[in-house]
Amino acid sequence: MEKINVGLIGFGTVGTGVVKVLQKSGALISERLGAEIVLKRVADHDTTTDRGVTLPDGVLVSDASVIIDDPEIDIVVELIGGTGAAKELTLQAIEKGKHIATANKALLSTHGKEIFSLAADKGVEVGFEASVGGGIPVLKALREGLAANHIDSMYGIINGTANYILSKMKNEGGKFEDVLKLAQEMGYAEADPTYDVDGIDTAHKLALLINIAYGTYITHEDVYTEGIRSINQLDIDFASEFGLTIKLLAIAKSIDGKVEARVHPTMIPSEHPLATVDGAYNAVFMHGDAVGSVMFYGLGAGMEPTASAVVADIIDICRDIKSGGVGRTAPLSTLPAAIKEVELKATEELDIQYYMRFLVTDSPGVLASISGVLGAHNISIYSVIQHERKVGGAVALVIRTHHAMERELRAAVAEIEELEVTKEKVVYIRIEETLGASE
Amino acid sequence: MEKINVGLIGFGTVGTGVVKVLQKSGALISERLGAEIVLKRVADHDTTTDRGVTLPDGVLVSDASVIIDDPEIDIVVELIGGTGAAKELTLQAIEKGKHIATANKALLSTHGKEIFSLAADKGVEVGFEASVGGGIPVLKALREGLAANHIDSMYGIINGTANYILSKMKNEGGKFEDVLKLAQEMGYAEADPTYDVDGIDTAHKLALLINIAYGTYITHEDVYTEGIRSINQLDIDFASEFGLTIKLLAIAKSIDGKVEARVHPTMIPSEHPLATVDGAYNAVFMHGDAVGSVMFYGLGAGMEPTASAVVADIIDICRDIKSGGVGRTAPLSTLPAAIKEVELKATEELDIQYYMRFLVTDSPGVLASISGVLGAHNISIYSVIQHERKVGGAVALVIRTHHAMERELRAAVAEIEELEVTKEKVVYIRIEETLGASE
Repeated sequence: MEKINVGLIGFGTVGTGVVKVLQKSGALISERLGAEIVLKRVADHDTTTDRGVTLPDGVLVSDASVIIDDPEIDIVVELIGGTGAAKELTLQAIEKGKHIATANKALLSTHGKEIFSLAADKGVEVGFEASVGGGIPVLKALREGLAANHIDSMYGIINGTANYILSKMKNEGGKFEDVLKLAQEMGYAEADPTYDVDGIDTAHKLALLINIAYGTYITHEDVYTEGIRSINQLDIDFASEFGLTIKLLAIAKSIDGKVEARVHPTMIPSEHPLATVDGAYNAVFMHGDAVGSVMFYGLGAGMEPTASAVVADIIDICRDIKSGGVGRTAPLSTLPAAIKEVELKATEELDIQYYMRFLVTDSPGVLASISGVLGAHNISIYSVIQHERKVGGAVALVIRTHHAMERELRAAVAEIEELEVTKEKVVYIRIEETLGASE
Repeated sequence: MEKINVGLIGFGTVGTGVVKVLQKSGALISERLGAEIVLKRVADHDTTTDRGVTLPDGVLVSDASVIIDDPEIDIVVELIGGTGAAKELTLQAIEKGKHIATANKALLSTHGKEIFSLAADKGVEVGFEASVGGGIPVLKALREGLAANHIDSMYGIINGTANYILSKMKNEGGKFEDVLKLAQEMGYAEADPTYDVDGIDTAHKLALLINIAYGTYITHEDVYTEGIRSINQLDIDFASEFGLTIKLLAIAKSIDGKVEARVHPTMIPSEHPLATVDGAYNAVFMHGDAVGSVMFYGLGAGMEPTASAVVADIIDICRDIKSGGVGRTAPLSTLPAAIKEVELKATEELDIQYYMRFLVTDSPGVLASISGVLGAHNISIYSVIQHERKVGGAVALVIRTHHAMERELRAAVAEIEELEVTKEKVVYIRIEETLGASE
């Protein structure tokens, strides 16, 4: 049986998962591929730690150039992460005519243009299914299964750490800081949780989803990004009263030739399929002009789920090598020559519903002054909640608006914060009430 | 730009959808493919009805052989349905070296072996994404995205009509017959609903899912099949009391080298993602040894959703033609040479939980006699509900069991039906309480 040689760079959690999956499913994969995938070399600085898997003698090396320089290796799996050495090694491997499989969203959302262009020049493939949604084959769905569709909108829960924290806060209560600490103890959050809780990781992934859906090159810096640090139990509870659930969503919408690209805590209807995606699970909900609403759900991280996607990319590349179809699908689906700039919509131009929470003096006329400011900015009120009474004291007043312009909303917030009755910074959270579903 | 010619046979609902999608997304598809898909001929007996789409003069013909005999047509889209003319035309097209895209689950689950074998001989591809789950790219996920996994289990809601009826009965109440009639009026059910409500269509689709997941050839006749005609409002309500929801599920499980293949009304936990799949939506929930739990959700039928999948298959075949990679993936993922028989588990050997409803005399000792029979068959009781009191009259008694052997359960049911206190045939519905999820 034909053999195809793979070199793996980065023997951490996902790298170990790739070794495990190749070992336990090797025979099955051969029945599906008609070739044997041989893990010829694994490179990592750390060649001594026991990872619970056994490699044949001589496979584990400390120097990645052993892989890059080996003409017998067809596919390089890059699992170092980050945009430093990972970038250099990826470019070197492509330069040598090797195909790439990677889980590196930071690398591809930042340097995708350079990497994909070089890959096109050298006639090699770059698979990156594992970079968004872990084991969920969502990039393949977008690139192939939905290739006949204009994608109207995408809504993703694509960071397991943030979703774990928000689910826990909703289901069991607790302050953000405490739940984060718990998540860190449980291994669901890293010691430095910045990438996850501040939405940066989600923005990296959204950039990749957008680049595939719309055939463009944006980076995470083009994505408006807010994290979940300011989410408060109070807002989770008020959301429930409105029948809404707070999720950290990656949102892309294509409207009138402009694309919205944003990551922020979002209130969505609690009965929507995305609202029930709990814990470390991820899901991407999309609307295509032909297919209507579709959703892809699964584990967005973890050793073997992520390895499932990396090995699927390896199998895909092997199927292309074996059949002579290398390059059959461009990394972003759209052919390089057809990739174009898309105009991104400024967040100020958003026209959506908002949740607003004020801490105000409990006195007659307060609602009148706040709604007066909102009205002056063309913001109509959908409903109001004020549960507490503390005559003369400060109470929470919550307003859900009808559709309003974000520019107007921000101006209104600034004015309301100047009012004497306002005792605290105004909290506002965006609401998505339909999520592209027509039903 | 290179042109690839397609011939469409069957200009019904889905055929019209294919024309619409190719017309509105043609430019976009060319950017993703680097070739132009040309719909050269459409064949249908009815060449006069206005379907709301315009074809260039001469494209619509009444004779399918015009397509079969045209050497310039590379891909034949078969959308006639059924296993008669569809089979003949498909085989003829393959014989002439044409690739096939089809939505025909009946054809492929019945004659897949013959069709796929001929396709392998002739070196052509057979795409059938639209045959399961409408627009949801679930076959691609199974064949490619999850190709590194042993599939432990699959649970599918893959008949929109049955799901519409069950959702309606649960959410709004009503008798099966009345809701079916409403579904027929709304266009969600056909005049003859046999295929949908008796589970036959679901069994066709399950056979295809199993053939891909396990590299085998079973037909729908190998699938144990029960429909939803006997589902009663009472059972829906009692299920809710147990926190369960009734769905018509296609179930496959691989346990100890045997495969369970069954379609029947199933009670599942109401908080499970599948339980919230409502109305005409479909979803397939799977568990793979590497990926863990994944779910694919979307519209399982309809003109454009189904066309989305058909056109995705056309694009896939075109990408293979264009790159020189024809035959890169076998229709069932497993290569023909590696396809083998799997041993199916008899339904009598099932070891699961059951819901049982009895109509019994309301008198002391009834529960004792019933539980005595159950106990004699090694069936333990998980919980019991008897709400009504009608001393001397007949009341509903509901029992949820722990895991039990179906063989024993059936024997117990037969004995209980002979008891004098039993006034009606015993109703039993299978329960799946974990659905492969480990969380």
